Amino acid sequence: MAQQERAIRTRRAVIEAAAQVFAEYGYAAATVSDILKVANVTKGALYFHFDSKEALARGIIEAQAQQALPAQDVKLQEWVDQGLLIAHLLPRDPVIRAGAVLSSDPLGREHYGSAWPALIDRSALALAEAKERGEILGHIMPRQTAELLAASFHGVQLFSQLESGMADIEHRVSVLYEHLMPTIALPAVLARLDLAPDRGARLYAQAEATATQQPAAVG
Amino acid sequence: MAQQERAIRTRRAVIEAAAQVFAEYGYAAATVSDILKVANVTKGALYFHFDSKEALARGIIEAQAQQALPAQDVKLQEWVDQGLLIAHLLPRDPVIRAGAVLSSDPLGREHYGSAWPALIDRSALALAEAKERGEILGHIMPRQTAELLAASFHGVQLFSQLESGMADIEHRVSVLYEHLMPTIALPAVLARLDLAPDRGARLYAQAEATATQQPAAVG
Repeated sequence: MAQQERAIRTRRAVIEAAAQVFAEYGYAAATVSDILKVANVTKGALYFHFDSKEALARGIIEAQAQQALPAQDVKLQEWVDQGLLIAHLLPRDPVIRAGAVLSSDPLGREHYGSAWPALIDRSALALAEAKERGEILGHIMPRQTAELLAASFHGVQLFSQLESGMADIEHRVSVLYEHLMPTIALPAVLARLDLAPDRGARLYAQAEATATQQPAAVG
Repeated sequence: MAQQERAIRTRRAVIEAAAQVFAEYGYAAATVSDILKVANVTKGALYFHFDSKEALARGIIEAQAQQALPAQDVKLQEWVDQGLLIAHLLPRDPVIRAGAVLSSDPLGREHYGSAWPALIDRSALALAEAKERGEILGHIMPRQTAELLAASFHGVQLFSQLESGMADIEHRVSVLYEHLMPTIALPAVLARLDLAPDRGARLYAQAEATATQQPAAVG
């Protein structure tokens, strides 16, 4: 195994361990030594990648903000896909789940930031592009709608956590888009949108298949 | 001052003190003796009304769920008014704010409950009545939409807390309704709805004026 690949794996193991510890104890109570125990790497290896608890939280937040998605003919579908993919990943991927918890923690504003500003910027940009292409209604203001989606999505996620431990989140997020999109999309575009609860699972399966076909040029 | 009125005032003072303490320390860390100090009532008076910390939390949650609203010609306006009034009260009324925090706390499920089930029941009932009157579109399922509103509202409230300490909540909740109502209301009904950010303030002023004109028959 090449050194670069080993470094990527170590970094990922540390991020996953930190996600688990932050999710269990919360940011304030978690310690780097808790994370070391779970990650099963040396202290030196951990500190090579992340020099503090804040840096670990920032690493998780960056991973949350970096979900890549395939381009679609309808730009508005890409906007929807972002949320449906996260809804699929939240109950399955501890790093995404920890990222959501850390991003909404008021402590983060002082210590490590939040994925929300980057996610909202990207979301507003996609809406602005959809508007230029004539896909969305004229009165929609991209940033306002992007902030509303972020806030509502967060609430739906907390509600699903309380009601079902996140088991129904894909359904609830699909219901959210079903309620929002008729107000946002032109009718002809609305008819072409896929808002189904299993859309996120299909996007994830596609991304996995693509990754298998194109192995990274390392090793 | 009659005994009954004195009891009502004491109960209200205790509820307000508990709201302040729960908001500052959170449910888990708050103690009845903290609440006693803030309320400035005797231990006996407090325990006459509330026999435990759980009972105090339940008292706040009941107060949150009991916001009364004037009847409107359009039933759907009453549905919207519920949220716009709470948006107006959240930054101003510590009991409403503490109720919102307590209702979303996972600890509440074990210890004192949540206002959400009662609020969602009432909201679903109002939507069902609006549906019977032909005010809302046929595909809307009252309970599903009531749950979505509760979840989204909660997210908007947390977002507003993080962004502005709740200063912009009336605006953000108005934006939420502007995005949802075209999907819910019949076009002719939509045109008659008042979704303005200052609607909650106007409803509150009306309620205050009515209360002044009709003093309670005590004293």
